[in-house]
Amino acid sequence: MRIALAQLNVHIGNFQGNLEKMIAAVGTARDQGADIVCFPELAVCGYPPRDFLEFDDFISLAETSIHRLAELATDIAIIVGAPSRNPVIEGKDLYNSAFFLADGGILHVQHKTLLPTYDVFDEYRYFEPAHQYQTVTFKGKKIALSICEDIWNVGNENPRYTVCPLDEMMGEHPDLIINLSASPFSYRQAEERINVIRANVERYKMPLFYVNHVGAQTELLFDGGSVVMSPDGVVYAEMPYFQESIQTFDLQEVMTQKGPGEQTREKIALIHDGLVMGLQNYFGKLGFTKAILGLSGGIDSAVTAALAARALGPENVTGILMPSTFSSDHSVKDAEVLAQQLGMPYEIIPIAPGYTTMLSVLQPHFGDKPFDVTEENLQARLRGMILMAFSNKFGPILLNTTNKSEMAVGYGTLYGDLCGGLSVLGDVYKTEVYELARYINRVQEVIPENSIVKPPSAELRPDQKDSDSLPDYDILDQVLFQYIERHQSPEDIIEQGFDEALVRRILRMVNINEFKRHQTAPVLRVSTKAFGMGRRMPIVGKYLS
Amino acid sequence: MRIALAQLNVHIGNFQGNLEKMIAAVGTARDQGADIVCFPELAVCGYPPRDFLEFDDFISLAETSIHRLAELATDIAIIVGAPSRNPVIEGKDLYNSAFFLADGGILHVQHKTLLPTYDVFDEYRYFEPAHQYQTVTFKGKKIALSICEDIWNVGNENPRYTVCPLDEMMGEHPDLIINLSASPFSYRQAEERINVIRANVERYKMPLFYVNHVGAQTELLFDGGSVVMSPDGVVYAEMPYFQESIQTFDLQEVMTQKGPGEQTREKIALIHDGLVMGLQNYFGKLGFTKAILGLSGGIDSAVTAALAARALGPENVTGILMPSTFSSDHSVKDAEVLAQQLGMPYEIIPIAPGYTTMLSVLQPHFGDKPFDVTEENLQARLRGMILMAFSNKFGPILLNTTNKSEMAVGYGTLYGDLCGGLSVLGDVYKTEVYELARYINRVQEVIPENSIVKPPSAELRPDQKDSDSLPDYDILDQVLFQYIERHQSPEDIIEQGFDEALVRRILRMVNINEFKRHQTAPVLRVSTKAFGMGRRMPIVGKYLS
Repeated sequence: MRIALAQLNVHIGNFQGNLEKMIAAVGTARDQGADIVCFPELAVCGYPPRDFLEFDDFISLAETSIHRLAELATDIAIIVGAPSRNPVIEGKDLYNSAFFLADGGILHVQHKTLLPTYDVFDEYRYFEPAHQYQTVTFKGKKIALSICEDIWNVGNENPRYTVCPLDEMMGEHPDLIINLSASPFSYRQAEERINVIRANVERYKMPLFYVNHVGAQTELLFDGGSVVMSPDGVVYAEMPYFQESIQTFDLQEVMTQKGPGEQTREKIALIHDGLVMGLQNYFGKLGFTKAILGLSGGIDSAVTAALAARALGPENVTGILMPSTFSSDHSVKDAEVLAQQLGMPYEIIPIAPGYTTMLSVLQPHFGDKPFDVTEENLQARLRGMILMAFSNKFGPILLNTTNKSEMAVGYGTLYGDLCGGLSVLGDVYKTEVYELARYINRVQEVIPENSIVKPPSAELRPDQKDSDSLPDYDILDQVLFQYIERHQSPEDIIEQGFDEALVRRILRMVNINEFKRHQTAPVLRVSTKAFGMGRRMPIVGKYLS
Repeated sequence: MRIALAQLNVHIGNFQGNLEKMIAAVGTARDQGADIVCFPELAVCGYPPRDFLEFDDFISLAETSIHRLAELATDIAIIVGAPSRNPVIEGKDLYNSAFFLADGGILHVQHKTLLPTYDVFDEYRYFEPAHQYQTVTFKGKKIALSICEDIWNVGNENPRYTVCPLDEMMGEHPDLIINLSASPFSYRQAEERINVIRANVERYKMPLFYVNHVGAQTELLFDGGSVVMSPDGVVYAEMPYFQESIQTFDLQEVMTQKGPGEQTREKIALIHDGLVMGLQNYFGKLGFTKAILGLSGGIDSAVTAALAARALGPENVTGILMPSTFSSDHSVKDAEVLAQQLGMPYEIIPIAPGYTTMLSVLQPHFGDKPFDVTEENLQARLRGMILMAFSNKFGPILLNTTNKSEMAVGYGTLYGDLCGGLSVLGDVYKTEVYELARYINRVQEVIPENSIVKPPSAELRPDQKDSDSLPDYDILDQVLFQYIERHQSPEDIIEQGFDEALVRRILRMVNINEFKRHQTAPVLRVSTKAFGMGRRMPIVGKYLS
């Protein structure tokens, strides 16, 4: 038996486009001699469809796609994820289902059992868990079908869950396991995925075919990396990261031979490639081709520009240099060198005229109040206004360049440098932004060395440095990581050796700035805890604040 | 037996403040001769604590509060909601629990069974449902304890759920039911609440004491309106809406006598009072006293100003009038009359100087491109910039004045009129804003008649009217309601008699503007489906778009 894994990039709600893509993939799989072609979880409608699932009409469109695919399943079987209606009145209205289509119809449906409802996941908001488990037999092979999280409770050892769906199927003695996934990327995910697949294979002593979604759905990245594992727990093949791929595997060969094995992985390279895909898909799925961003000469805008140039082509990324009276000489020069090295267009628009006018407009109302954060923010907002005017006039999407460290402590101006349709680096700590810059420069200098080595500054008042108001990023990022990713208490973090006053100050900054994060662009998620849908905090709370 | 219901306004994460408030309420209840005092769901930490619940430290603080309250429960019993740890490794880490504190300790704990996970609710993200049900006996009375949603599956007829926790307790023949709630307000909620309480009372033939949270937690409003219902299904007493109250009821009297009964309810009055409380609590809990907003002379800013003046005192609300070259004469006049009638300070700052400067700064880059939405947005963003400069310089919070109709179709400028820390009218359709204006003017004119009767206009280009680019609000709001609140498909709505092209255009506008709503302020929720945490839509989706 030959099994094709179709690691596709579908688009949420784009039933027609997704169906066409799947029909083409069925053709490819057939050409590769496949008996079965497998698509990812909820491939028919895209993952996560979120509250679109609450529209009856949306579910009907998914049903139509399933019927269209079933008609194609004549000389080849199709396994595909789609929402399906729960016929029982009690419980949630839907299941998250794997359809086994063969002989022109629906041969079998297995619903998902383990419904992740944490971090970015809301599955129990929509879906009823499976209460029945059954294998499906095709061409003499008994197949245990599972969906994503279903394989993440090996032998019931995951404390989140009380059922292990594959355990329930083993009484039927299946020959192989197939898993349809839409498992969001983080830089640790590929390794964890292989570990959990291995744990299943070692428990059940049979091969596992795992097909993952690839592509970005707004902030969520899916890295593909579909896996075929031999019954001895060795990776037979791992499909590419961050690109579509359709590959067919011979079950007999998987059982007996050695395959190409797994890929090498490196954290910063994964983050880099994930962000590039995130940018490409955000623009591509919205039907946009051009981006714009402010270039300050600093490291964040330089790295964002380099990623965007890689994703969209440098000719499609315009940099706007907006020096102020407080900008250092090197700022414009560093930004110009960057633009030239990237081969991207740029324009220079000083903010002084707008700043002077606005100061004079406001002066009668502000009287002799001294220069403060108001005037700093005014400069940042003038830049936001200029960038948005370009966006409106010429149609590019504005990219936000704020990094995760700044986003965490609220070091940024709402409606100023926090503007933008997409936050590229909002899940990348400042220290990781430097690593990304070094990675981007690994073959030749793209980002000017000076942007990497100079002390970070917002340049909104004379001789300002980030270190005037923030701890050193080396320390800050460690404390933030303990709090944000690891949910440590102030006491836990202090016990690790960090200064008590500093820890309390940092955690307070994080918590009192929730209102800013509430109004910022979606953040491409590369870590296990990103700002956005996976981190839901009260705005008017009073905890560590 | 005398039972006190303490309908309190607690603050999420403010353990110290909440504890002090509860200690005072225990004193009041004791003075009223109560044997038991009941606090709302999760009163110890505030509801909803959201991802604060994922911090072990946060749960420890809740435990400390419970122990402090238990020490007080000597001559009076205390029933209070708090999170508690699930001692079993499998399943969610926490329960949402009702603690019965008596004799200086914890006499009984009943966990919540029905965990709402839809709309604004995420309870299954955090909590394990109860699997055990037991009444508690105190002073010879057997009490069935329940938490909020637990009473919303009467006789298992709610399709969401498969268990009815009170049914499970009835074998023990309790004498009364107590329910601790934190049930978010919508203008239909008080009526539905009484209906569901009555359904329980009629099923179990015993009195029900229902204590609800009152106050706002960012976007969620809680209206109080705690209810005591006699076993014959008549409301014995209903506590006030939108204010704290502690009242003690004699069980014997509830069983045998007629009480003061329920309050009258009127949709627009409820919305008005809810928004006023929402404003008060947003400011109060953040420690702010002053607001600022742009006054355009239009109905939305007028109603927002009137609500803010009512909530914070007119002297604490500053209006900024920012006429443009496209503003009509009456705009400034209407805004001035409003400010004078409200007794609030205002300032006039024309945007022409900034607009002229920015046009000249941009002209070399824009060339001979014609006037378009860029220049319209520029004016809106200059206003946002001026308002934020005032906010930064003097410390007031900027109020957003966008209504639900505009928010729905994206009729507003990101970083312009969509600026602000709190959206006051974002869940109020334009046609309801008019009703609110009439309601506010019911005794004497506060909002100038001209602001109510003139055709709505953004005044961003010559002779502009909303009706140039939007359908009449009467039609628009009906279509939006069918789609947003009722999840109807385009076909369903067209079948109701609306023009097909118009319906498709409106629904498309709603769906392609998700990116704007993602970056706007939290919206005070008054309907059953508000923009924000209760409506989670893909940004880069392609459904009806």
